[in-house]
Amino acid sequence: MTSKVVLYMSMSLDGFITGPDDGPDHGLGLGGERLHGWLHSGDGDPASYRPTDDAGSTVFDELMATGAVITGRRTFDNAGGWGGDHHDGVPIFVLTRTAPERPAPGHARYVTDGIASCVEQARAAAGDRDILLHGAATAQECLRAGLLDEMQLHLVPVLLGQGRRLFDNMPADHVELELLRAMDGPGVMHLRYRVHSRSTLPGAASGRGAA
Amino acid sequence: MTSKVVLYMSMSLDGFITGPDDGPDHGLGLGGERLHGWLHSGDGDPASYRPTDDAGSTVFDELMATGAVITGRRTFDNAGGWGGDHHDGVPIFVLTRTAPERPAPGHARYVTDGIASCVEQARAAAGDRDILLHGAATAQECLRAGLLDEMQLHLVPVLLGQGRRLFDNMPADHVELELLRAMDGPGVMHLRYRVHSRSTLPGAASGRGAA
Repeated sequence: MTSKVVLYMSMSLDGFITGPDDGPDHGLGLGGERLHGWLHSGDGDPASYRPTDDAGSTVFDELMATGAVITGRRTFDNAGGWGGDHHDGVPIFVLTRTAPERPAPGHARYVTDGIASCVEQARAAAGDRDILLHGAATAQECLRAGLLDEMQLHLVPVLLGQGRRLFDNMPADHVELELLRAMDGPGVMHLRYRVHSRSTLPGAASGRGAA
Repeated sequence: MTSKVVLYMSMSLDGFITGPDDGPDHGLGLGGERLHGWLHSGDGDPASYRPTDDAGSTVFDELMATGAVITGRRTFDNAGGWGGDHHDGVPIFVLTRTAPERPAPGHARYVTDGIASCVEQARAAAGDRDILLHGAATAQECLRAGLLDEMQLHLVPVLLGQGRRLFDNMPADHVELELLRAMDGPGVMHLRYRVHSRSTLPGAASGRGAA
């Protein structure tokens, strides 16, 4: 089995992964906790959020069976670094431009030499297990670099109106997807896609590129 | 049976309903025809696009059974006004700020006194049949006014990267949706949602309001 980089994100139908004004005190932004309504009420430890329905628990168990975590600095900080252990002590690679002076807590480490290095290190650590990717900016970097293998999106039937978009700041290239699985859970649709290679449109505007 | 205002739109997973640079010569923008890949190849007459698969033909037949059309001026112009007849000679209400001097073709008419009047006229014309709504800006106006009853979205497994978004320029209010039906067709997921009333978030940013 080949290890895959899999993005796991809850997204509103209008494409937001947080409400407005997300930050360390409001990781999901104003009203953004609506997006996690399909999860069980938890205490901050990711394992405590396991849903009880079949679809939700299946997806959740897959997430928790990953062998490494890649996350952006914003997501990491807003989640309080998961206390240094996202699940089972697997290594957490935090993509950042500049590492803070204080070392990363627990099983986390900062990666400052780019997404390709981050994915390479995570692959080495995960062995034949998949790699969990979290965070919009990091997902966009991974997509632009052609390093994202799959996406497991939890599509929540709500319009948030404003917030942080999962897909943003991307060039006008088409990324073809393939729906691998659709599971309907209570108040959420779990959609798993394979990411195929990008095709650049002839004559396309060059796009805004990296943020 | 109560007549409902139903938005019908093809949308990429990243939320776009056109590629970049849409206009009268490229109604779906650069590369945006990818979004209509689930439809049969047609000749400009909407009826000629009927898909042959079960899911696609079911949704298409529902669309073509509507008793009136509401559309934004941009969508109308980009589609060449459907030659004045979208389907079966039902009236087409074109929401616009300023009506052009030339009268609207065929069964179309311009409505300049706002979305509420537009919906009221369409309801009167449609009788007990549903009303077909087309166009992003008009959908946003309808949502903001609380006049949209349902959405039939054709979710296409592609990231377009850039283009015109279906959900944009909305205030930071939550609009709760209810998934009524999910049908998986070849290369498209047909999702039908009921639109519930908006809830304004306490302390929410006021939003950007009408474009």
